Amino acid sequence: MALLDADRLFPVEERVRGLARALYDTVKDAPIVSPHGHTDPRWFAENAAFPDPAQLFVTPDHYVFRMLHSQGVRLESLGVPRADGGPVETDGRTIWRRFAEHFHLLRATPSRIWLDHAFETVFGLTERLSAKTADASYDHIAECLARPEFRPRALFERFNIDVIASTESPLDELKWHRMIRESGWGGRVITAYRPDPVVDPDFGGFVNNVEQFCGLAGEDPASYAGYLAAHRNRRAYFKTFGATSSDHGHPTATTHNFSPAEAAALYDRVLSGKADAAEREAFRGQMLTEMAKMSLDDGLVMQIHPGAFRNHSGPVLDRFGRDKGYDIPSRTDYVTALKPLLDAVGEETGLTVILFTLDETTYARELAPLAGVYPCLRLGPPWWFHDSFEGMWRFRQMTTETAGLYNTVGFNDDTRAFCSIPARHDVARRVDAAFLATLVATGRLCEDEAFEVMPDLAHRLARQAYRL
Amino acid sequence: MALLDADRLFPVEERVRGLARALYDTVKDAPIVSPHGHTDPRWFAENAAFPDPAQLFVTPDHYVFRMLHSQGVRLESLGVPRADGGPVETDGRTIWRRFAEHFHLLRATPSRIWLDHAFETVFGLTERLSAKTADASYDHIAECLARPEFRPRALFERFNIDVIASTESPLDELKWHRMIRESGWGGRVITAYRPDPVVDPDFGGFVNNVEQFCGLAGEDPASYAGYLAAHRNRRAYFKTFGATSSDHGHPTATTHNFSPAEAAALYDRVLSGKADAAEREAFRGQMLTEMAKMSLDDGLVMQIHPGAFRNHSGPVLDRFGRDKGYDIPSRTDYVTALKPLLDAVGEETGLTVILFTLDETTYARELAPLAGVYPCLRLGPPWWFHDSFEGMWRFRQMTTETAGLYNTVGFNDDTRAFCSIPARHDVARRVDAAFLATLVATGRLCEDEAFEVMPDLAHRLARQAYRL
Amino acid sequence: MALLDADRLFPVEERVRGLARALYDTVKDAPIVSPHGHTDPRWFAENAAFPDPAQLFVTPDHYVFRMLHSQGVRLESLGVPRADGGPVETDGRTIWRRFAEHFHLLRATPSRIWLDHAFETVFGLTERLSAKTADASYDHIAECLARPEFRPRALFERFNIDVIASTESPLDELKWHRMIRESGWGGRVITAYRPDPVVDPDFGGFVNNVEQFCGLAGEDPASYAGYLAAHRNRRAYFKTFGATSSDHGHPTATTHNFSPAEAAALYDRVLSGKADAAEREAFRGQMLTEMAKMSLDDGLVMQIHPGAFRNHSGPVLDRFGRDKGYDIPSRTDYVTALKPLLDAVGEETGLTVILFTLDETTYARELAPLAGVYPCLRLGPPWWFHDSFEGMWRFRQMTTETAGLYNTVGFNDDTRAFCSIPARHDVARRVDAAFLATLVATGRLCEDEAFEVMPDLAHRLARQAYRL
Repeated sequence: MALLDADRLFPVEERVRGLARALYDTVKDAPIVSPHGHTDPRWFAENAAFPDPAQLFVTPDHYVFRMLHSQGVRLESLGVPRADGGPVETDGRTIWRRFAEHFHLLRATPSRIWLDHAFETVFGLTERLSAKTADASYDHIAECLARPEFRPRALFERFNIDVIASTESPLDELKWHRMIRESGWGGRVITAYRPDPVVDPDFGGFVNNVEQFCGLAGEDPASYAGYLAAHRNRRAYFKTFGATSSDHGHPTATTHNFSPAEAAALYDRVLSGKADAAEREAFRGQMLTEMAKMSLDDGLVMQIHPGAFRNHSGPVLDRFGRDKGYDIPSRTDYVTALKPLLDAVGEETGLTVILFTLDETTYARELAPLAGVYPCLRLGPPWWFHDSFEGMWRFRQMTTETAGLYNTVGFNDDTRAFCSIPARHDVARRVDAAFLATLVATGRLCEDEAFEVMPDLAHRLARQAYRL
Repeated sequence: MALLDADRLFPVEERVRGLARALYDTVKDAPIVSPHGHTDPRWFAENAAFPDPAQLFVTPDHYVFRMLHSQGVRLESLGVPRADGGPVETDGRTIWRRFAEHFHLLRATPSRIWLDHAFETVFGLTERLSAKTADASYDHIAECLARPEFRPRALFERFNIDVIASTESPLDELKWHRMIRESGWGGRVITAYRPDPVVDPDFGGFVNNVEQFCGLAGEDPASYAGYLAAHRNRRAYFKTFGATSSDHGHPTATTHNFSPAEAAALYDRVLSGKADAAEREAFRGQMLTEMAKMSLDDGLVMQIHPGAFRNHSGPVLDRFGRDKGYDIPSRTDYVTALKPLLDAVGEETGLTVILFTLDETTYARELAPLAGVYPCLRLGPPWWFHDSFEGMWRFRQMTTETAGLYNTVGFNDDTRAFCSIPARHDVARRVDAAFLATLVATGRLCEDEAFEVMPDLAHRLARQAYRL
Repeated sequence: MALLDADRLFPVEERVRGLARALYDTVKDAPIVSPHGHTDPRWFAENAAFPDPAQLFVTPDHYVFRMLHSQGVRLESLGVPRADGGPVETDGRTIWRRFAEHFHLLRATPSRIWLDHAFETVFGLTERLSAKTADASYDHIAECLARPEFRPRALFERFNIDVIASTESPLDELKWHRMIRESGWGGRVITAYRPDPVVDPDFGGFVNNVEQFCGLAGEDPASYAGYLAAHRNRRAYFKTFGATSSDHGHPTATTHNFSPAEAAALYDRVLSGKADAAEREAFRGQMLTEMAKMSLDDGLVMQIHPGAFRNHSGPVLDRFGRDKGYDIPSRTDYVTALKPLLDAVGEETGLTVILFTLDETTYARELAPLAGVYPCLRLGPPWWFHDSFEGMWRFRQMTTETAGLYNTVGFNDDTRAFCSIPARHDVARRVDAAFLATLVATGRLCEDEAFEVMPDLAHRLARQAYRL
C-alpha cells in the first residue's frame, strides 16, 4: 500500500491531469536548489546520526506540535524543552506513540503530505501512521537512522540537493560552515546574512549584540559609521562562506531613508536603550534601506520576511521560550512602508529585493503591482502557513496576471525539518505543473511555452534571483 | 419538474462528483444538530400555525427583503414594520406577488437555494416562483400552513432536528422555554446566553438593563462584584433550560484583562453614562474575558461573533429600527484583540471559545493560525453573508491547511427562518462532501479517511464542541 | 497557426465547457457598449492613421511597459517621453524589437490575451510575437495602419461599438467631441464628467483650475455657491455632448456631508492653499456628496474609483511625470467612508452610484453587502489590475451570493488602448459565460435562466445602469 497518490495535487480533469503530469515529469528529478532555509549546518559538519524518530519528526517541528497542542496535548509531553530546564518527556517512543495517536489531526494539512512523503520515500514505510502502527514505524525509522546511509550528508546527496543555504546571525563565527568546507565533502552548504539580532532594538540583548558584533568586525560601536562598517565587514565574511543573500525578519515592512545625521542620531538613541517603540521601528526601517544600499555594492540579494506577531502567548513564551508555534501572521502594508527604500534604490537594476508575506491580501493588491513595475523587486514564494497546495495556488492566481511569472523566484523550502525538503520541493513542482497545465487548458498559455516555463519555476529562477 | 438539482453543489468532474455523492449519502439523513440560531421558542411553546406565506418567507427574512430593496422595492411594500407604527403593506398575497415578480434578483444567491429547497421539500411545489406562478404557490402554501402537519412542532420533527438552540437575553425569563418543557413535548429546544444588552454600554437602555438584570438575579447593581454575581446567577438559570453556550455579538474582537480594581472602576464609569467610546469598548473587552473565566467554572462554551457595523443607514434606522438588513461587515482584527483573553485563559483545555468572522481575510492569516495552536480556540463555520456555497468553500480552503479539520465545529444555521434550516444544513453537508471528495481526488486525503471525517463535519464536531 | 484558443477561458470539464460555449455564442457578436474608458476623442474627430505599431501597442500601454521595466528595460528605450523633453527612443522598429524580445514576460497575463487578440483578429497575424517574428509583424502592422480600413472610425465600426464614453476634465471645451458631432459621422462617442482637477486640492494647479473652471461657466470662484453653480453648468454642458455619467478618482472613498456653512468655509480654506492634508481629504469627501446631490437633479450616473496610490516612485515621477505604471492599489475602506453620502442620498431610487475597487478584500466583506441593500448602489466590474480572467472570476465568486447579478453593471473596458477594446469585452463575455455555466452545472442556476442572464451581463445591464 502506498502512502502517496502518484497524481497528487494535479487537476482532476483527465486531459489537464495528463498535461500536468507531463510537465511535472520534466522536473521531478531535477536537483534541488534551496536558496533559503534553516537547516543546521552542524548536521553536515559533524555528519552524526539523527538521534531518534521523535527528535527527527516531532519535537523540533512546530507545524506538528502546534497542531497537537491545539487539541490539548501538552508541549511537555511532546518533548518540547522548557525555558527553565524543567522536566519534559524524553522517551522517543512515548512521544512517537502520542504523535501517532493524534496523526488524524494532520489530515488535509501540508504536514501530512510532507510526513507521508518522508515516511514513504526516505524510510520506505507503507502503512499509514496510527496508534496501531506506531511501534513498528518507530522501530523501523530508528533502525534506519543508525545506518550510514541515513546520516545527514548521505541524505543530502540522496535528496539531490545542488545547493542549500542556512541562515546565520552576524554574531555567528560560522564554525560549522568552516568545518564543512575544510572537510573536503562536496556538498554545497552556504550561509545567509540574517542581522536581526543587531538591527532590531527589540531583539533580546540588542545592545550587547551590537557591541559583540562590532568587536568581531574590529569596528567601533560608538559611532554609526563604525556600526555600518561592521555590517560591511561581516557581510564580506559571510560571502567567503558562500552567502549570496541577506534576510530580514521584521515585524513590519517599514523602511526609512533618513539623512546620515538623522540616522546616526537614531542609532545613538536606540543604543542608549531609551528609544520608544516608534524610534525602534524607525531604526529597523532605516536599516533595511542601509542593507539595500550595501547590496548595491556587495551584490547580496535582500530578502524581507515581515508580518509575524512573534510569541503571541505570554504564558507560553515564559514557559517555553521563543519559536514554539505561537507566531501569528498579521495585517501587513507594503505600499506606504516600502516607499522610502524604493525611492532610494528601487530603480537599480543591479539590486534584487525579494518580498515575502504572511498576508495574502497583499498578493494582488500590493505585491504584484509593486513587483510588476520596480526593477529591483521580486516576489518570494508563499511562505510558512501558506507553503501548501492551496497557498501556492492562491499565490499564482493572485500574482501572475500583474507580476507575471518572471518576477517570481521559484521555491524556498525555508525549513529546519531536513526530511521535508524533498517533499516540499515536490509539492511546489506539482502545484506549478498543475497551474501551468490549467493555463494551457484554458487558453492562457501555449503548451510549448508551459514546457519552457516549468524548469524556470522549478529551479532556474531560484538560481538566477539568488545568484547561485 | 424539480426545483432542485439532485447533484447540486457537487464538483463537476464525474469521478469526484460520484465520490462527493457517496460521502453525502452517508449523512444526508442524519439528524440536525443546530447549536446556534435564532428561532423563536414561542413557535414550539404555542405550536400555532404560521400566519401566511409572506409572513413565513418574506417579511421576516432580511436576506430576501434587503435584495429586493437594493433594486428599489420599498420596505413598507414588503410589510416590514415601521418604527413609528405607520402603515405598511399587510396583505400577504400582495407582498407575495411583489416577491414573486422580483424572484429573479435572487438568482445564484443562497437565498434562492434555501427557498427552492423549502418550496420543494417542505411544500411540494414544482414550479419556479415567478409572477405567473405567484398566486398558485401562495394558495398552496397557505393551504398547507392551515394543516396540523405544518405547525412548528410537526415541522421540527419532520426536519429531523435532534436539538436546536435559540438565543436569549439575560433579561429574558425564558417563559417559552419553560412552557415547552412543561408541555411534555419531546423536542429538544435549548437556550443560549447572549448578554449583549447588559455588557455592551452602547446597547439601547444599557443602564436600565443592568438594573433589571441584577434585580432578576437578586444582586446589587451598584458593585462590580454584584454585577458579576448576577451573570453567574443568570448563566446558571440558563443552564437549567439546557444552555451549553454563551454568545457575544461585539462590534470588534477586542478583549481586556484589567485588574479587579481597574475593572470595577470601568464598570462604575460605564454605569454612570459618562464613559467615552474607548471606555465603552474597553468594558466590552473586559466582559469577554470575564465571561471566559466564568466558562471555566460553569462549562458554557463561548461564541464570539464580532465585526458587524450595525444599522449602517441612519435614515433606515430611524424609520424602521434595528436589524433591517443594514448591518455591514467591516475589517476585523483578532491577533492583537484577543491577546489579553488568550494570555489569561488561552491554554485552558477545559475552555472552548468559538470564533466567527465576517472578514474572510482573517481565515488564513489570523484565525487558522490562532486556532491551530491555542487549545481553547475553535473556528465557527462561515457566518451570515458567508453562509453559502462559495463562502463555505473559501472557509475550508483557507483554514484547513493550518487549523486542520478538527479545530472546526461543524455547521451553525444561525437563522430565524425556520423552513430554511434543513436547506442550510443540506448545503453545508453537500459542500463538505464536495470538499472532502476534492481532497481525495487530489491525493490530499485517503478515501477511507474521508468517510470517517464526513459525519464529524455533519454533526459529531458540533455535538462535541457545543457539549450536546 | 492560431494565436488564440477558440475555447479559451472556458471551464475544462466537457459538459460545462459546452454550455459555456453555447452561452458565449449568444453574445459574442453583440455590439460593444463601452460606458467608461479613456480613448482619445481626437482619434474619431480627425480620423488620422495611427502612427506606427510601437505607438499603437507599446509606448502608450502602461500594462506593457511596466512589465518590461520591472525586468530592467529602461522606459526611455521604449519611447516613454521624459518630463524634461530629453531624448528617448523614437524609432518604432527598435522599440518593437525590444518589445518582441521581452514578449515572454507577458505570459499568462491579460495583456498577452489582449495583444494576441488584436494581432490575430484585427491584423491577421498568425505567428507568436518573438525576436524572430518582430520585423515581419512590424512590417505587416505598419502596412495595415497605412490603409483606410485601419483608421479610427473604420476600426470603431469594425469593432461593432454601439457607444463609447471618453472621460474629460471640466476644463475641457470638448472640441473633439464637437468636431465628431459636426462631422456627420454616425459613431456614438460621448463624454463623461471627471472633475478631479477642480475637486481635488492635491491635483496639480488646483487653484488655477478652479478659477479657469468658474470662468468657463461664468461663475464667481470666490464663493462656494458660485463654485457649485459652475459644476452644475459644466455638467449640463457635458450632457449636451452625450454625457450620462460623472467619474471620481479619489485616493480614498471618504465622503462627508457638512452643513452649507461648514462646506463653504472648507472651500475657502482649500482655495487659500493653507488646508492641511485632513482638510483637503475632507473637501474631496464633501464634493462626492455634492456631486451625488447634483446627480439627483441632472441624472448623471456617478462612478467612484478610489484606492490608488498614484505615482508611487518619486524619482520616476520626477523623470517621466504622472501615469507611468507606478500607481499602486492600497487598502480601501468603504463602510465608514461612504456612510455620510449614503445617509444623505443612499435611499434615493433615482440615483445610481457605481462603486469600483482595487482592494478585492472589500468585494465580499463590504461592497456586496452595501450594494445588496442600498437602492442607489451598484458594483462596477473588476478594475485595472483586476480586469483579467482571475480578477473577474473572483469578482463574481465574491459578490454574487450577497449582491446578486443585478446589482452589477456589466463590463467597462476603461482603456486608452483602442485595439484592446474588443479583446477586453470578449474576455468579460467569456468569463461570464464560464461563470454562468458553472452555476448551472452545480445546480445554482437553471439553464434557461443562464441564457436570460447572459445578455444582461454582456450589454443590457451596462445600458441600463449608465442610461445609454
